[in-house]
Amino acid sequence: MTKIEEIGQKAKAASLEVAQLSIEERNRVLRAMSQALTANQAAIIKANQADLAKAEGLSKPMMNRLTLDKKVLDGIAESLEAVAELKDPLAGPYENWEHPSGFKIIKKTVPLGVVAMIYEARPNVTIDAAALTFKSGNAVILRGGKEAIQSNIVLAESLRNCLKEQGLNPDIIQLIEDTSHESVNELLHLREYVDVLIPRGSGSFIDFVVKNATVPVIETGAGNTHIFVDESADFDKAIPVIVNAKTQKPAVCNAAEKLLIHEKIAANFLPKIADALLAKGVELRGDKAAQAIESRITTASETDWDTEYNDLIMAIKIVKDVDEAINWVNAHTTHHSETILSQNKDNVAKFMQAVDAAVVYQNVSSRFTDGFEFGFGAEIGISTQKLHARGPMGLPALTTLKYEVFGDGQVRS
Amino acid sequence: MTKIEEIGQKAKAASLEVAQLSIEERNRVLRAMSQALTANQAAIIKANQADLAKAEGLSKPMMNRLTLDKKVLDGIAESLEAVAELKDPLAGPYENWEHPSGFKIIKKTVPLGVVAMIYEARPNVTIDAAALTFKSGNAVILRGGKEAIQSNIVLAESLRNCLKEQGLNPDIIQLIEDTSHESVNELLHLREYVDVLIPRGSGSFIDFVVKNATVPVIETGAGNTHIFVDESADFDKAIPVIVNAKTQKPAVCNAAEKLLIHEKIAANFLPKIADALLAKGVELRGDKAAQAIESRITTASETDWDTEYNDLIMAIKIVKDVDEAINWVNAHTTHHSETILSQNKDNVAKFMQAVDAAVVYQNVSSRFTDGFEFGFGAEIGISTQKLHARGPMGLPALTTLKYEVFGDGQVRS
Repeated sequence: MTKIEEIGQKAKAASLEVAQLSIEERNRVLRAMSQALTANQAAIIKANQADLAKAEGLSKPMMNRLTLDKKVLDGIAESLEAVAELKDPLAGPYENWEHPSGFKIIKKTVPLGVVAMIYEARPNVTIDAAALTFKSGNAVILRGGKEAIQSNIVLAESLRNCLKEQGLNPDIIQLIEDTSHESVNELLHLREYVDVLIPRGSGSFIDFVVKNATVPVIETGAGNTHIFVDESADFDKAIPVIVNAKTQKPAVCNAAEKLLIHEKIAANFLPKIADALLAKGVELRGDKAAQAIESRITTASETDWDTEYNDLIMAIKIVKDVDEAINWVNAHTTHHSETILSQNKDNVAKFMQAVDAAVVYQNVSSRFTDGFEFGFGAEIGISTQKLHARGPMGLPALTTLKYEVFGDGQVRS
Repeated sequence: MTKIEEIGQKAKAASLEVAQLSIEERNRVLRAMSQALTANQAAIIKANQADLAKAEGLSKPMMNRLTLDKKVLDGIAESLEAVAELKDPLAGPYENWEHPSGFKIIKKTVPLGVVAMIYEARPNVTIDAAALTFKSGNAVILRGGKEAIQSNIVLAESLRNCLKEQGLNPDIIQLIEDTSHESVNELLHLREYVDVLIPRGSGSFIDFVVKNATVPVIETGAGNTHIFVDESADFDKAIPVIVNAKTQKPAVCNAAEKLLIHEKIAANFLPKIADALLAKGVELRGDKAAQAIESRITTASETDWDTEYNDLIMAIKIVKDVDEAINWVNAHTTHHSETILSQNKDNVAKFMQAVDAAVVYQNVSSRFTDGFEFGFGAEIGISTQKLHARGPMGLPALTTLKYEVFGDGQVRS
């Protein structure tokens, strides 16, 4: 048995234990975890500094995501308290009904079992994922990136020690310390023990996971996000929405990447939005029609239209009408968040219905695609697939169902 | 572009059309399909006889499943009427709420898009799958087995002609006429066009699909189904339940395959259940402890414990207590249907909670795991996985959700 199989087997055994905890027990432990992390701040920051010292060459946003200082750790401790406050995703009332022959069927909500998370250089995901999977009664296997490995080891040990102190099996939360590609590969095929794998990271990494995994996967996060500015758009509202969606946090999956403009308003609208975006430091690329109107736009290549920049770049295309916009979006979307800026009810209804994405917006910045903004109180990721969960995933996405049937000797005739 | 890719592309285009039909339109077309199948009975029976003529060497149950006579076809036509009567799985009311900044979020139920079905020698699945995917607003790609290909071609053409006569795109329903392994293989990788693939067939075929597909899959149907007879079981009820679960229809996935008996009652119970099962022609295999009590039991091999017989064979094992039963079941279950026969509340609660299966029964025959018996009015398959759908899948399993957001220029700060 390999090291990873051993982790899987321990997780499966631990999943039966955590599934039996009452919501009072789960919440008590989450609060104890919050206190444990606060008590261990010095050790966590020391480990994080070791990671940061090795992290030369990472971009500034990556360095920011990697850093755990007192402020970040206080926030993480608070977030554990907040998870303890959330509604129990396993609580009833459950649907139940009686078969004509007299037996009773109860449709229960139960934990998934063993959740595996693969993620990159964000040590806060270690805590987020552990807290949300624990709250929903699951065991978790964490496989973070090598950039954050020292931080992750100390964070995971803090949580595991806390579980032990609370009289629980520490294997409810396990970290894979091996940061080689082989450990990911093995995890992708651990069907016997892993009930669902949630990868978080770049589009190409998630694509690799989806194509290679034999365990069930929930695809998350890739966001080649479009905004279509219809003929009827209200410019005074459209410009702030586009600027916000593009620049408020350009490195995230719900940031806008592409701008489609109705040809009838392009000559008037394009110079205005170009001014606003350039003033925020956005590099503009575009098709020939856009370049003909606005000389500050450079040429977009074929690959641009399918690229998630995660940066201050936006590609602009002129389209004939809402139908061309819909076809273009459906050909290039990553099914995350898509937007129409329009005052025309028919065009909005058409776009909402036909565009194949988790969230479709009218006249709102796509930056709102987020479990907290949607009112779920938590987020384990944003699903870009259609099975099981779609869009921002709160605690219910970490559960499944089970039919319990109680009878008295009924047989089928 | 290959032939299969072309089918995929046409299905994706057709999926946008079928998704826009009102429930009145969908039901009207389902009733027209029912009439079309009745009108075409002669041609269907002729094609089916061509399939049957080639089907030498198939077992009798397989021949039965393959046969379409007037009675079967009348039943299929009636089932289409019944699907038209079912509740619209896309109907609201939808959850909706307002963000603090004033925009409105609506959580809509929408079709999955393109559903692909791969199945074996049961031509009735062609109609079932087409009807249920159509009712739920999806396009479908059907890939039936070579044994039923002539029947499937005529059935699919009847439905496609009916769609045309109703003024709809016939590509809402497409059959892959190529019955080679290559066509299956290509379908497993058609990520651009297929939203979900539902395989139906043998456990080894479904395993092949799950391990090789890059499109999202819902695993169905493999059933290595156990019954545990606890110390406290009521023999008068236990014996009829076991006999029913094993023999009422042995070739199906919810038939019982394994019998675990508590050691304290084994000497008393085993001869009684052996009499009852042998009287029904069931071959009994077992472990040494079972053989020591009952000489009519032959030796079960290691592979027996993981084999779904789909036949009049049952393997019997003696266990120490409910805990050993639970551990054994969890090590060998296909997560379909598992049963405890017991009058002891604590043991029943433990078994219900710990056994990892879609349906867990107390004192009821597992033959009831079925969408119709569960009151769903339809069944597209029985999911043995935890994501998206679990257990008998009715029309809601063929839908997903979509968030529609309507605002007035809101941006995130």
